[in-house]
Amino acid sequence: MIVTPAAVTFLALGGVPMVQSGDDLSDILFAACDATGEALRDGDIIVLAQKIISKAEGRAIRLADVTPSAAAIDLAVQCDKDPRLVELILSESRDVMRVRRGVLIVRHRLGLVLANAGIDQSNIAQDGEGVALLLPRDPDASAAALRAAVLARSKADVAVVIIDSLGRAWRKGTCGVAIGVAGMAGLLDLRGVPDLHGRPLQTSELGLADEVAGAASLVMGQAGEGRPIVLARGIARGPVDGRAADLIREPALDLFP
Amino acid sequence: MIVTPAAVTFLALGGVPMVQSGDDLSDILFAACDATGEALRDGDIIVLAQKIISKAEGRAIRLADVTPSAAAIDLAVQCDKDPRLVELILSESRDVMRVRRGVLIVRHRLGLVLANAGIDQSNIAQDGEGVALLLPRDPDASAAALRAAVLARSKADVAVVIIDSLGRAWRKGTCGVAIGVAGMAGLLDLRGVPDLHGRPLQTSELGLADEVAGAASLVMGQAGEGRPIVLARGIARGPVDGRAADLIREPALDLFP
Repeated sequence: MIVTPAAVTFLALGGVPMVQSGDDLSDILFAACDATGEALRDGDIIVLAQKIISKAEGRAIRLADVTPSAAAIDLAVQCDKDPRLVELILSESRDVMRVRRGVLIVRHRLGLVLANAGIDQSNIAQDGEGVALLLPRDPDASAAALRAAVLARSKADVAVVIIDSLGRAWRKGTCGVAIGVAGMAGLLDLRGVPDLHGRPLQTSELGLADEVAGAASLVMGQAGEGRPIVLARGIARGPVDGRAADLIREPALDLFP
Repeated sequence: MIVTPAAVTFLALGGVPMVQSGDDLSDILFAACDATGEALRDGDIIVLAQKIISKAEGRAIRLADVTPSAAAIDLAVQCDKDPRLVELILSESRDVMRVRRGVLIVRHRLGLVLANAGIDQSNIAQDGEGVALLLPRDPDASAAALRAAVLARSKADVAVVIIDSLGRAWRKGTCGVAIGVAGMAGLLDLRGVPDLHGRPLQTSELGLADEVAGAASLVMGQAGEGRPIVLARGIARGPVDGRAADLIREPALDLFP
């Protein structure tokens, strides 16, 4: 029987500076906890906006340094985007799924289906020149590294979730989605769990880390609030060896290619 | 400037009985608040599992009372489901989108794309005979009615969100999704909101009620916990005239039909 808690809280930590390439995210996390008067505890989930992971890992690229290929130039005309941006999108993607004027939806090398390969041009300092911020190279590994750093430093057994705001098929609006996970289930297997009447549940797999991501997004805000780290408490984490990759449906099994 | 709060809490209320057809949900809500020692306040969001709305509204159908059409019988063979269940699914749907063995994905008359038209056979008493629970007839109206009942009874200006757990394209696992909304934004328009550097945000619309739904799902649990009502506090609700229907992308604009 999986025990689901009766209350959860999501607290956006204060005192997070503008993150720079090379910054140590565990330093930033502990400073933010101090600024907010919180100490990390076993079972806490630390949720981080993808942007600060990408910035710390040096994933900001100056468009001036990008030379678009012929394929990127051609695609850029179709979707009416900067060919250098399209070059970066293609370099981060496995497949182009949809192209429309202003729209370029791809399957990212991580398996995520998203617009512009998740490359972001907001909340990045623009020193007169365009800058694009790519997703982290391996967000599951980034999450695992931060989890290990927290354990080494504070002995707290925390989970880490790295999130981005993505669009969805059929529904308007973006929602927070887990792109990196460590120390908890990404996908929670409920097969065999009985319902109130003892029948097996029809819903057999829960997108646990995605629900955490959406909730954390509520307190991060999307705009200028500058609250990219959220502390979540009270959530049953499930098996600690989960990954965000567990949430990706293999393309061969997907009904909406 | 939209002010996003720094902390939100989601509390599953205790003392919710097995809901029966004809039950008054505001009675059940206030009894559950009393049982949990909580009084409703302005700005609270009440999140309810679709199942208890459907049960209260008498949407449980005995399969023995259903006569499948020829089309339903044919489709039932293709997807290996009970033809009476398929008849109910078709009666609730605009289009059949995908059919595979064990899988029937439709566009529901409410615009939702989901498996089996959201018809549920778990957590429903089975007196030796199959029973299927349909989605509420008009979940936005159900949410508005409960919001009005709360206002009349307690003077508290609350929002109401009715949620279901749905699968997604491209990702494994279900997530809580808003199917009925009143008293808050379903879709939150962020166009023109500046980022940290004063540039307009690229993400222009947030699936606010869906993020609330996913978060509430974390405390409801999926199985036998019997906690179908969640009290959410601390969320900036946005315009109070939102609806879950605002989250539906029109089929003509969808890239993944």
